[in-house]
This record gives sequence, structure tokens and C-alpha cells, in this order.
Amino acid sequence: MSQFPIVGGELVVGGHRISELAERVGQTPFYAYDRGLLRQRVTELRAVLPAGIKLHYAMKANPMPALVCLMAGLVDGIDVASGGELKVALDAGADVAEVSFAGPGKRAAELRQAVAAGVLINLESFREVELLASISRQLGRPARVAVRVNPDFELKGSGMKMGGGPKQFGVDVELLPELLSQVKRSGLAFEGFHLFAGSQNLRAESICEAQLKSYELARRLAEDAPAPVRFLNLGGGFGIPYFPGETRLDLAPIADNLAQLLDRARSELPKAELVIELGRYLVGEAGIYVTRILDRKVSRGQVFLVADGGLNHHLSASGNFGQVIRKNYPVTIGNRADSAERETASVVGPLCTPLDLLADRLDLPVAQEGDLAVIFQSGAYGSSASPQAFLGHSGVTEVLV
Amino acid sequence: MSQFPIVGGELVVGGHRISELAERVGQTPFYAYDRGLLRQRVTELRAVLPAGIKLHYAMKANPMPALVCLMAGLVDGIDVASGGELKVALDAGADVAEVSFAGPGKRAAELRQAVAAGVLINLESFREVELLASISRQLGRPARVAVRVNPDFELKGSGMKMGGGPKQFGVDVELLPELLSQVKRSGLAFEGFHLFAGSQNLRAESICEAQLKSYELARRLAEDAPAPVRFLNLGGGFGIPYFPGETRLDLAPIADNLAQLLDRARSELPKAELVIELGRYLVGEAGIYVTRILDRKVSRGQVFLVADGGLNHHLSASGNFGQVIRKNYPVTIGNRADSAERETASVVGPLCTPLDLLADRLDLPVAQEGDLAVIFQSGAYGSSASPQAFLGHSGVTEVLV
Repeated sequence: MSQFPIVGGELVVGGHRISELAERVGQTPFYAYDRGLLRQRVTELRAVLPAGIKLHYAMKANPMPALVCLMAGLVDGIDVASGGELKVALDAGADVAEVSFAGPGKRAAELRQAVAAGVLINLESFREVELLASISRQLGRPARVAVRVNPDFELKGSGMKMGGGPKQFGVDVELLPELLSQVKRSGLAFEGFHLFAGSQNLRAESICEAQLKSYELARRLAEDAPAPVRFLNLGGGFGIPYFPGETRLDLAPIADNLAQLLDRARSELPKAELVIELGRYLVGEAGIYVTRILDRKVSRGQVFLVADGGLNHHLSASGNFGQVIRKNYPVTIGNRADSAERETASVVGPLCTPLDLLADRLDLPVAQEGDLAVIFQSGAYGSSASPQAFLGHSGVTEVLV
Repeated sequence: MSQFPIVGGELVVGGHRISELAERVGQTPFYAYDRGLLRQRVTELRAVLPAGIKLHYAMKANPMPALVCLMAGLVDGIDVASGGELKVALDAGADVAEVSFAGPGKRAAELRQAVAAGVLINLESFREVELLASISRQLGRPARVAVRVNPDFELKGSGMKMGGGPKQFGVDVELLPELLSQVKRSGLAFEGFHLFAGSQNLRAESICEAQLKSYELARRLAEDAPAPVRFLNLGGGFGIPYFPGETRLDLAPIADNLAQLLDRARSELPKAELVIELGRYLVGEAGIYVTRILDRKVSRGQVFLVADGGLNHHLSASGNFGQVIRKNYPVTIGNRADSAERETASVVGPLCTPLDLLADRLDLPVAQEGDLAVIFQSGAYGSSASPQAFLGHSGVTEVLV
């Protein structure tokens, strides 16, 4: 985890040694997100991707308000998944022209909120067209819509598949002619298409293939669209390495592919902005979860470091969030990060359940009570994706440094 | 799910038709817990278990304050797993003499809170003995302690194993002589032992075996104890049926076994109360999760009922809380519960993730927008065990009716 330097034996995050940072935060456990690394990731992406590609942040990955504020200043748009996230994006000062709202189960009140705010709504069903037509009349402004398409292909090798086959997401491509004519009749402001094939993919060729197919599908669909395509969201799916043996996503072929698509779009979809929507890839590696060792126990030859937080704050790291097989996230002892004294130890949380496991028999610096266990790759799907109230333990806090 | 009657086509909970209850609650989604069923479960248990057995409620299963108040009046004691749960138990008026506090990672502040409140602390490590000795001196009252033992056997056929082998829970039985002498030297008020072999077990013979072994282990350990055993917590582990093919736990052999243990204890551990500690078994079947259908979509021949809540409120039902293989909880459409029109449909939540699945291609009454999907067996490990903040959707509420 070379993104965080080690100084004087301690991991450094946002310029702070981990033990000093813990004092400054005033409590453990906490999440810390490194501003410098967040900026650096966007800069690196901009450097390799063609200039015409718009970069959106899917804030579901990390909705911490201060982080969303920072991201709003770095990317071209924010994608939200609920009325609650829309509020955070608006508070963060995101440009409403570049905010889009997707989700298979939008409440009427959320749709109304989105129309009133003037953000782009990714339509996911015939019901939403009807509801938006009615809301648009009531509010005296047409809803801005893009159609989320459930394509007839999948993103191969994805952590999660979000398109292809029967799905709750978007509208099946076969039904698009009917949907698009309904959009037209309803007087909604059609702006384009949204395709999101899958997530957490480390294979560039699969992502390129999905982007190409998405582009071609959208181009075909554009022929029947009620207005020129101005917005084409090609989805995301860029993965980050979590586990041993996983290799970093190669961006070069993706950049080449996007450059070709931009080139084609210049003549084929001349008014369209091409957007990619990234969540985990932008923020995942910039964050850590820090929990203090309360107890060091040896049970039948096995070392257990009992920490003051666990799955209640970091469900993903415990292996209980969609994982079929539990694997260890990268972990260290932050205040002894380069110690030569090492041992095999398990890091467990304070909960009365064997599920509360942050590291299962991992090679770690030898740790004592009071030390700080650090879980890397924790900037996405951490705090907000965890059952905070479980067993009534104290909550986690988040800092942006 | 015969515990909830159907009247006029609607499921009835706590005397209310489900559609009326939803109006009264004023929002969906919600959890509803049926007072009558909670009382009935305790009454049934008391009727079959020997009178001398003390019944504790492990509030980790459901910490809703009003429910804990109700349970405090029905059972003999409350078991808590954190300082936060301790506060709820005290607010609920639980008798501090009969409150016990277990957990592998207790913070110093929580231990202090427990000593000040005068509740029984289940010791899980040598560190806790040291800390409690110091806190007892500071507060001028000896901590009341029982020793949580990690036995040298497992509870066979358990959903989760909490004892046997290397574990973060309790103290290995091999280390008990050393621990007990440290307890004695430290002047803590020793009261007994806690053994908790595992959870969610539907095989009576396994539970009987674990109780017998736990009893015999405690009796043996009592010989070296600093004071007579007054409290012997034999754990719980009573399961409830969730999935097709699971049969209800047979209480009769457990009752017989406990009667024999009580009989032995009269001579062998004459001052001891025998306690069983149940969470899920007391509350799991008395609760439902209710979520409104926002949209009915047909994608490539498959029906999706998109509901206004999902894994953000009910992680267990989505199959993402410790389950290796996802299975459907029992589900119905509450306001059409006895409809003859049925179809195969999936119930999904509003989140932008394929993990948000409450029912996967289940035979259900044909449902429309506005209908109420009901997930049964949801009284335990529901609201508090779910990532409420995930994707910023509106929260779930809980009612006791």
C-alpha cells in the first residue's frame, strides 16, 4: 500500500503520522480520507483519458459531505442514488446541470425533488415516465431525463453485474422504442442514455468491450430518440485491487478505446457528451479505517487482536457484503508499520459474533494494546455500507485530511 | 407463517390489518413486532421448561427500547453486549442484579459504566481482570464478575460457533486455573460462569449435549473458584426455522435435559441459578418487515417488484449477513395474503446494487404498485444489523403493536 508513506515507523495519512492523527480525531475507530490522494487520482485519470471525456463521481461509494464537496470541485459531475444523496450533492455545490440521479426504486417525492432541483433523472421504468410527466406539469418545468438501458450484454468479469439478462435496473433494450415514444408524448426533456454494465472490474479488455457495445447500442437507439443525444453515460466498473494476486487495472487501453469512441461520436452523436461514472475507483484507495487494539489474546496458540471497531463500521472488510468467499483486505499496524518483529495474528472487532473478523491469520507487525490497526482500501463502501447500530457500540467518525 | 392471522385477505399484526397498520405508522418501510406473540413465546417456554431455569433475553437480537421494556417485564434478566445496550437495558427498568454484560472487546469506559451500574460482567480476558480491579478500587465497589469460558467442545450444527478451538470469546478452559486465581487476588466479586457454544441451532440433541457439557465443565471449574457459583449461564443457541425444509426446534428433550441438570445442581452447585440466554428465539418470529411496492417491472419475462426498502434495512433477508448461500426468507404480499392469483416474482429494494434482493423468484400473490411486501421471521437481527445509511435512502422505523 505504497500510497501512504511510512515515517519514523508510522504510517502517514494526509501529512499526519497515524498516532498523531488519532489524537487529533479524538476517538477511535475512524475513517481517514487523504485529500492529496483523491486529487492525485483524478489528476492521473485526466492525464491518461482523452480530454473530451467527462468524469463523474458516483457518490454512493462515499457520501461523506466534506469529501463530496472536494470531489465536486475535481470532477465534471456527481451521480446520486437517492433523494438523500441529492441533498448532499446540492449542498456540496455540484452544478445541477451535471448531476444525475439513478436508482430502480425512486419514490415520487424523490422524483419531485429531482425535477425541482433541475438535475438529470436516469429513467428506469415506464412508471417513472408517467410520474415525471405529472410532476413536470405540476412544477411547470419538464423533467430532464436520460434513459437507463438494460442492455443485451454483460460486463464480463465484474464483481457485480448490473446489466444483461432480466434485471431491476433500467429498461430492457427491446422495450426502448415504446419507452422513447412515451417519453416524447409526455413532453419530458430527453437528453440521452445511461448504461451501467457492472462494477469492480480489473480487466481493461472487458471494460473496453462494454464501453464499445454501450456506445454502439446508444448510437442505434439515438435514431429513435425524441431529441439529439446530449449525454451518454457509459458507466464505470473500474476496479481497484483488494486481494493478493489482483493486478491494477491498465488504463491505457481504456483511454485508447474512449478516444476512438469520442472520435466516432464527433460525427455520429455530434451533440453528445461522453461520461464515465466512477465511485470506488476514485476514492477507494485514498481511505483507511483505523481501529485501536483493546486486547491481545492468545487462544490455543492463535493470536487475536481485539479492536474497538469491526463489522459494525466496516462490513466489507469482514467479508459480509456480497463476497462469496471471505478474503483479507490489506491490513497493518499503523504505528509499527515497518517493524521487523512480525507474527501471524487475527484482528477481530468487539462484537459478540464470529462474523466480526477484520483479518484472519495475517502476517502483521507484532501488536500490543493501544496500537492502531489499519485497514487499507477503505475509502469506498465503508462507513455508509455498514450496520453502525449493531450491538450498540460507539459510532465511527470520518475525517478528510 | 401461521402466527399471523389473515382477515379479509390481509395479514393481521398485533390486531391490525397490515394496510391499516401502514397508515398508522405513517411511513414505509417499517418493522412491526407483535406484543402478543412476544408474550406467547415466553409463556410457552415457561410452560415447558422447568420452573427453576432462569430465562434471559439477549438484547443484541433486537434492541428496540420499547421492546426491551416489554421483555424486561417478561424474562428474568437481560444480557447486553455493549455500553450502549446497557443504557437501553437500564432505561427499560431491568433489575441490575439480573443484567449481564458480555463481549470480547469491552472498552475501559464501558467496564466502568458496568461496575458503576452494578451489573454482572462476563470476563473475557486477563486484561479485563486487571482493568476491573483498578476500576473497582476507584469506585469503591468490587466488580461483579462471571467468567466466560471458551470450552474445549463445539455446539454441533450451529449457525455460528462461539466456542471451541481458538476463539476471541471468553478464556480458554486450560487457562481458567490461572484466571480464577487472578480474580481471587484482585478482590473481584466472583459469581459464576458463562458458556456460549453457538447460535441458531435447530437440533435439540446438539443443544442438550452442549448444555450438559457446559454444566459439567462449570461444575469441575467450580472446584477452583474463589466463591460458590451463584450464576451459571448455559448459553442459548435455540434456532428458529427460516427456510424451506427447516423443522421447528423440539423443546421437550431440552426441557428434560435442563430438569436433570437442575436436579444435579441442587446438590453439586447448591447456590447456583441456571440461566439460558435467548435472543433470536424469543423475538425472531414475532416480527415482520414491511416495505411498499413502488414499481412492478417485467424484464425479459421475469417479474420484479421494486420496493421502497431492502438491504439497507434488512441485510439478513438479502442474504448478506453471514450466509454462505443466499436463501429466501418467507415472504408474502401482506394486503393480498390469501389471493388465489399467484405468480413467480422477485422482490428487490431501491438500491443501485444487485445485492438488494429480498425474494428471488418466489411464488407470491400477484402484486401491484402500492401493495405491501412482508418479510417474516424478521424480529431479530433486522433493523440494528443493517447498513441504514447506505445510499442515503430514508430510514426504517419500528413499531411494537
